[in-house]
Amino acid sequence: MRNILIIGAGRSATSLIKYLLDKSESEDLFLTIGDLNIQHAQKFTSGHPNGRGILLDVFNQAQRREAVENADIVISMLPARYHMEVANDCLEFGKHLVTASYISNDMQLLDPKVKAKGLIFMNEIGLDPGIDHMSAMQVIDRIRDKGGEMLLFESFTGGLVAPESDDNLWHYKFTWNPRNVVVAGQGGAAEFIQEGTYKYIPYHRLFRRTEFLDIEGHGRFEAYANRNSLKYRSVYGLEDVLTLYRGTIRRVGFSKAWNMFVHLGMTDDSYTIPDSENLSYRDFVNLFLPYSPTDSVELKLRYSLKIDQDDLMWGKLLELDIFNTEKKIGIKDATPAKALQKILEDKWTLQPEDKDMIVMYHKFGYQLNGKKHQIDSSMVIKGDDQTYTAMAKTVGLPVAIATLKILNGEITNPGVQLPIKKEVYEPILKELEDFGVVFVEKDVPYMGYNPNNVVG
Amino acid sequence: MRNILIIGAGRSATSLIKYLLDKSESEDLFLTIGDLNIQHAQKFTSGHPNGRGILLDVFNQAQRREAVENADIVISMLPARYHMEVANDCLEFGKHLVTASYISNDMQLLDPKVKAKGLIFMNEIGLDPGIDHMSAMQVIDRIRDKGGEMLLFESFTGGLVAPESDDNLWHYKFTWNPRNVVVAGQGGAAEFIQEGTYKYIPYHRLFRRTEFLDIEGHGRFEAYANRNSLKYRSVYGLEDVLTLYRGTIRRVGFSKAWNMFVHLGMTDDSYTIPDSENLSYRDFVNLFLPYSPTDSVELKLRYSLKIDQDDLMWGKLLELDIFNTEKKIGIKDATPAKALQKILEDKWTLQPEDKDMIVMYHKFGYQLNGKKHQIDSSMVIKGDDQTYTAMAKTVGLPVAIATLKILNGEITNPGVQLPIKKEVYEPILKELEDFGVVFVEKDVPYMGYNPNNVVG
Repeated sequence: MRNILIIGAGRSATSLIKYLLDKSESEDLFLTIGDLNIQHAQKFTSGHPNGRGILLDVFNQAQRREAVENADIVISMLPARYHMEVANDCLEFGKHLVTASYISNDMQLLDPKVKAKGLIFMNEIGLDPGIDHMSAMQVIDRIRDKGGEMLLFESFTGGLVAPESDDNLWHYKFTWNPRNVVVAGQGGAAEFIQEGTYKYIPYHRLFRRTEFLDIEGHGRFEAYANRNSLKYRSVYGLEDVLTLYRGTIRRVGFSKAWNMFVHLGMTDDSYTIPDSENLSYRDFVNLFLPYSPTDSVELKLRYSLKIDQDDLMWGKLLELDIFNTEKKIGIKDATPAKALQKILEDKWTLQPEDKDMIVMYHKFGYQLNGKKHQIDSSMVIKGDDQTYTAMAKTVGLPVAIATLKILNGEITNPGVQLPIKKEVYEPILKELEDFGVVFVEKDVPYMGYNPNNVVG
Repeated sequence: MRNILIIGAGRSATSLIKYLLDKSESEDLFLTIGDLNIQHAQKFTSGHPNGRGILLDVFNQAQRREAVENADIVISMLPARYHMEVANDCLEFGKHLVTASYISNDMQLLDPKVKAKGLIFMNEIGLDPGIDHMSAMQVIDRIRDKGGEMLLFESFTGGLVAPESDDNLWHYKFTWNPRNVVVAGQGGAAEFIQEGTYKYIPYHRLFRRTEFLDIEGHGRFEAYANRNSLKYRSVYGLEDVLTLYRGTIRRVGFSKAWNMFVHLGMTDDSYTIPDSENLSYRDFVNLFLPYSPTDSVELKLRYSLKIDQDDLMWGKLLELDIFNTEKKIGIKDATPAKALQKILEDKWTLQPEDKDMIVMYHKFGYQLNGKKHQIDSSMVIKGDDQTYTAMAKTVGLPVAIATLKILNGEITNPGVQLPIKKEVYEPILKELEDFGVVFVEKDVPYMGYNPNNVVG
């Protein structure tokens, strides 16, 4: 029996655990699932001969070290900031490690020691980061292998609600951490590069400079820029690429409407509101509008936004019930962002019958034999239900597949790494197809942003 | 002879030094002016029997301690972050200290020791902070002395160019640190209180929510909100006031035009631009606009701002020559804010013949015997020339007057303090009138923001 330790049994671990349990007979695996919540840990293994759930507090050193020592490989599904405790144990006891998180500086510093021990610390192997890396590098390597030179790379990902469960004007529900959605894009200007020119978008303009994406059979989407696209230059070896842009996908109209909150200042997470727990939704909105003894909050808001009452944007606000005088924020010392999240969660929480959907879209522009080409590649996957969501599948399955391939010696290159090597991404992408993670490629005319080399 | 040590002989020290030198005979004063630049230190004292300039590096402990020990009172005109070195020496050697800076936490912590030694550490006694405190407290105390209850306090200050030197479309030139002007309002939402309701303005809306101020004989001004008005509740004892608002004064139209830079993201000081030294002004502008192979930077900008080319706003941009392809930013690793400052300094630097102007405006709303009243108080002062600017006069004269009154035992209350006590502000304001710092008061109908007590 090969022992796999999975630390963290939250919502993103369901498909991961199912995959490994399903293979446990044929592959001779035993799963130990450790979580702070013993119910979570035991939920998926009860009655299963090849798995058990244990109470595991990652800050209980003895508990953690014992669990790691007894494993052949460790998967950490904890938030990224908790990985290092586990990583250091893995290094000491000589165990492989798999995570779906960005490689932190501390993690990167372990690389020489990890290599010296012949271990594999595979990171960024979820959805984003993860499937984005693998599916992008697969095409980029193919272009390079045939002698092409990359000109443009754009990549977009979004976690959305599936069309059959899309029943609000925003065409959006929270399928992941709501807080990340509310504060998305904050902390500095979005920077990217287009046709060799650096471009910057300040936060308050981010949701007004979107672009459209059409996916056959799924309709039209929009995307706003992620904060830092430029780090992918070194990660993907695209130092000389003319255009590099990463973005977040939403249904058309979301960003323009979301910008109403940005405009008002409701997404600010940097200060707390006095007496926030007792504010009504209406009081909260009024914090961001000029005082008036006579004008209504509604009129002040429409005037500030310069919209009429038959504007769809107005309908979106009404749908959220933000002018309600009875509903309270109910959170002490709330920042505007936390208060807004509360209001949105009333309406945007996935219901038991709802399904989610993940959309990914890449554009690859390249030059080959003096001619410009473009490949667009897209992937759309829906959740099965509230347990095996699209998010859980796309985050968990690459982790699970990588884990098994490391155990089986099919991935051999040691070190702290992310899945950008062919040895890693080829077999994993191949197997992911069986689970519905299928990229559809199209050769399209190279558009870039300057197809005719106009100087402007 | 009483020895006064003045540390820092920059532009704000001219009127301060002149005042004390002019009084040096009659008041038996000897001035030692210490500065890192010996020319600056000696500029005003050369040939004067009662003054000398010395080289003084505030981080040279021996030098600094010797200078402090030989003084009877010390004035620090250094930037606030350098005061503590001097303050600790003053405490050790038992010397009074005067600064025009906000009281830092470290400074405040010295209060018990300062009191124990019977010393006076007078701070915030320049213009803003300084004259604003004194002129406001004078009226507030008067209202309270006759039994009035404060309902509203609004206070506005601006450093502007005098009308006779106002020759640009922005009606603005830098009369103080340009950097502070470029980054003004950043770092969080502006917060204030109106009729008992908290109000917040995010940075990107700050320059669009202005109010007008009319001053007889000087025309119309506008003001945008300062970041933190609420700290004045405790400073002025206005805990229960319904409306508290502080703002910065500009000529009408400045804020709307300045908002163009905010809108574009050009005032951001949080990241550096690659190859900034070689960017033309036009390149710089283009960083904040979408890429296009054909559309001009001009058209893209007008479209982003949604303005026509006969809009006055457009004229303001053209006047700054921001589309120039030849002029370079010329600063390595510039942030957008630094690059913008460079462009503005080309046009907004005070010329040798230019005069500056300081404008201050307070509104005091109060209730007395069941009736509501309002007093508006305004002060406008112009500079004499480029040496004795309005800024140097209004910052330096209160410091100088306070220093002499402390020396002469007319200000006696010990401790780390700011000038909000009648003992301090009354004689200083009285004497400031001789130098043209004259507040004009008007009784006006109480407007507040809700004169009829409408609930809205």
